[in-house]
Amino acid sequence: MRRIAVCPGSFDPVTLGHLDIITRASKLFDKVIVLISRNAGKAQPSFTATERMLMIEQVTKDLDNVVIDILDGLLADYVRNVGAVAIVKGLRAVSDFEYEFQMALANKKLYAGAETVFLTTATENMYLSSSLVKQIAYFGGDISHFVPEEILGDITQRLIKER
Amino acid sequence: MRRIAVCPGSFDPVTLGHLDIITRASKLFDKVIVLISRNAGKAQPSFTATERMLMIEQVTKDLDNVVIDILDGLLADYVRNVGAVAIVKGLRAVSDFEYEFQMALANKKLYAGAETVFLTTATENMYLSSSLVKQIAYFGGDISHFVPEEILGDITQRLIKER
Amino acid sequence: MRRIAVCPGSFDPVTLGHLDIITRASKLFDKVIVLISRNAGKAQPSFTATERMLMIEQVTKDLDNVVIDILDGLLADYVRNVGAVAIVKGLRAVSDFEYEFQMALANKKLYAGAETVFLTTATENMYLSSSLVKQIAYFGGDISHFVPEEILGDITQRLIKER
Amino acid sequence: MRRIAVCPGSFDPVTLGHLDIITRASKLFDKVIVLISRNAGKAQPSFTATERMLMIEQVTKDLDNVVIDILDGLLADYVRNVGAVAIVKGLRAVSDFEYEFQMALANKKLYAGAETVFLTTATENMYLSSSLVKQIAYFGGDISHFVPEEILGDITQRLIKER
Amino acid sequence: MRRIAVCPGSFDPVTLGHLDIITRASKLFDKVIVLISRNAGKAQPSFTATERMLMIEQVTKDLDNVVIDILDGLLADYVRNVGAVAIVKGLRAVSDFEYEFQMALANKKLYAGAETVFLTTATENMYLSSSLVKQIAYFGGDISHFVPEEILGDITQRLIKER
Amino acid sequence: MRRIAVCPGSFDPVTLGHLDIITRASKLFDKVIVLISRNAGKAQPSFTATERMLMIEQVTKDLDNVVIDILDGLLADYVRNVGAVAIVKGLRAVSDFEYEFQMALANKKLYAGAETVFLTTATENMYLSSSLVKQIAYFGGDISHFVPEEILGDITQRLIKER
Repeated sequence: MRRIAVCPGSFDPVTLGHLDIITRASKLFDKVIVLISRNAGKAQPSFTATERMLMIEQVTKDLDNVVIDILDGLLADYVRNVGAVAIVKGLRAVSDFEYEFQMALANKKLYAGAETVFLTTATENMYLSSSLVKQIAYFGGDISHFVPEEILGDITQRLIKER
Repeated sequence: MRRIAVCPGSFDPVTLGHLDIITRASKLFDKVIVLISRNAGKAQPSFTATERMLMIEQVTKDLDNVVIDILDGLLADYVRNVGAVAIVKGLRAVSDFEYEFQMALANKKLYAGAETVFLTTATENMYLSSSLVKQIAYFGGDISHFVPEEILGDITQRLIKER
Repeated sequence: MRRIAVCPGSFDPVTLGHLDIITRASKLFDKVIVLISRNAGKAQPSFTATERMLMIEQVTKDLDNVVIDILDGLLADYVRNVGAVAIVKGLRAVSDFEYEFQMALANKKLYAGAETVFLTTATENMYLSSSLVKQIAYFGGDISHFVPEEILGDITQRLIKER
Repeated sequence: MRRIAVCPGSFDPVTLGHLDIITRASKLFDKVIVLISRNAGKAQPSFTATERMLMIEQVTKDLDNVVIDILDGLLADYVRNVGAVAIVKGLRAVSDFEYEFQMALANKKLYAGAETVFLTTATENMYLSSSLVKQIAYFGGDISHFVPEEILGDITQRLIKER
Repeated sequence: MRRIAVCPGSFDPVTLGHLDIITRASKLFDKVIVLISRNAGKAQPSFTATERMLMIEQVTKDLDNVVIDILDGLLADYVRNVGAVAIVKGLRAVSDFEYEFQMALANKKLYAGAETVFLTTATENMYLSSSLVKQIAYFGGDISHFVPEEILGDITQRLIKER
Repeated sequence: MRRIAVCPGSFDPVTLGHLDIITRASKLFDKVIVLISRNAGKAQPSFTATERMLMIEQVTKDLDNVVIDILDGLLADYVRNVGAVAIVKGLRAVSDFEYEFQMALANKKLYAGAETVFLTTATENMYLSSSLVKQIAYFGGDISHFVPEEILGDITQRLIKER
């Protein structure tokens, strides 16, 4: 049996925390689909879905069983269509946990065929979020500890322009 | 002594979770006023206060001691004016609890004559929120497990139009 | 309709926090039964159930609709037998909330006829617990801010003897 | 690649909540080892490790890829020895999450080759724990909603004897 | 050695809760800089940074070692530049704690020379926030228990105008 | 003004997490008293108070402004007697926070002259506790990542003997 997992998120932009979770998931399942949701909440994203996809492709190119896709509908529908057995989410803190817990229960109700599986982030990434990265970059801070090296330049340039 | 309770919320739209809490409250107090706050936070609501009132009327028509009203000022003032002894809120999770706890303490400071009373939601509604319902309906998902049957059609139609 | 509420706890000993919750409950229901569980967890209690009952009687003597009883079986059975519509619990903090939430769901499963109703403690009692009172008294600290005046002498004497 | 997961716990006794997590895990991995820790904390367990093993065998007999074992040392060592890629834990609530999170980080430090994977319990089991089951049975309450039918008789008999 | 602490926030407007934390901090450190961030999140603030500075100056005029400044860049950079050894934050609740914890870890990564130091708010201010104050004032409620007396008039006038 | 801080705990045994907090505190205050409580809760400690003192002395010998003492009464009394302005506690997680928060409020009530000051542990120590160290050592696990090198031998020998 070949087991597929979906790893959803907005990845706006992808951080070292995301990359850590994707890498861990790739060891647990036969195939991992990193699934980009077009809009992170209601706010306008900083990067287009395509830009985010290109960045993730760059930083996951050594992970053979990882592919990337963009979500246009309901996560539960996507998971059913690709026949995934798991939705993988990283947990950093209690507040993460509560929200993700509710989403997991809702997704289970909408499609019972897949489990939401939570992984713990590495401690050194525990405080890391895309919005933190953007906030620091906006003020000219150094984000090299927070995002993969390959895309550091692209992200910095873009976020400085936004000022 | 006739005891009145107020059950405030934005109910945008009313869910099975709300209905469960209203029903439970109606057994604990002589009269329950479901009180609709015009705006849920700063975001533009999906349904007008009047539309929300009509939906709640439909789904609570069998609860004899339940009436519905719209809030135009401070909750503490409303509670004092109607002589209510309790403000009833449903709790789903820890994050709910914290926010509601702060509001309860603030309301007690503004008007000491009423208690905030927390009820636990039924486990099967624990993940349920109006915003989740709207998100699922927006993408064409099935919300029949989440909202009362009588208003399912109305809600689905409206939320699909919003796309 | 005459509504009865049960207010369970170990009350070992009763604190100002307990008294505050009992007083609030007595305004919401027609009759409140303060229900003493014999053993607080597995630890040996500091006061016998009868001693605890006498102390609560002393401090609630001005609350006409409050009576006191001792629990010898399952709370759910007791609640069913006396025909109570509510179990009242005070919440101080998130950790309280989680435990009480689980107990509320379990009690609902065992007897669906009563609701667990949570009240918020007054902010000045938020840190207050029977075990804190005992710890302070054990070391000869002043517990007059923490327990009702009428029973201060009794508690202090007993807890000093335990040293 | 054949992936093994370990599902550790004290299972004193096994509940419907445990069984739900074991069943879910059996769909995500090629082999699941239910691993019984001899002592649940410092307290004397109600059932011997062997009794607990027999009960789990009974209730998992239809799950082909599930085996049962008893832990005599460190979990991290066991996981390394059997070549497991995952430690599976069920999460019910925030307090669970915090403790399990710390254990997951510690286990990762002791053996980096396996991930702790968290699954959410079904909402109807959210309040369920072995200690709750024992408490209810101790007072003669009905535990049939809480434990698998096959072992209901054995558990009830034993726990009543403990009175 | 002369130790400087920075007390950052949006103070829109300053409340009795803020003033309590500033006062406590002024006893722990040789100098305290109250540091106003221009924008509280993305929302448009109700008072300009200068107005907020003037209000804080009024209410802290008796605290000799307190000065006020406005933040235009990254907090970590500011802290490094003034040679502060501590960032002081008040904690009211668990949700506060989680967010502040992540910010503390991020700031430590950006500048290791200063510690984030958390103080507990007085219990009577535990539910207090600038947004609560504004919400109450907006509806004509009495905010005299929530903000320092010296600025009560100014705040009320402004917030009523916003209606 | 010379400011003294007290850093209380059971330190049974001292871990790298404790040492990190003591070191941070020593930079914020003129003098830090590491204060050992004789009994950690009700459980029998693994090391005598004197043994724990000797271990802390060894690992803090390079911190000039740190001294060590043993607590025989109430913390609030000790703090008053030595004229300390602060009680320093490390926070790892939400559950820590809640308990410490209640203790901080209680201590403030007993002696208003000192603040409880919370520091965040380094992320790599976030899962670390004395009881975890003991549990791992008990089963022969490697605790070199968890306790200071100077005392690793002593701790391991003692804890192995306890088996």
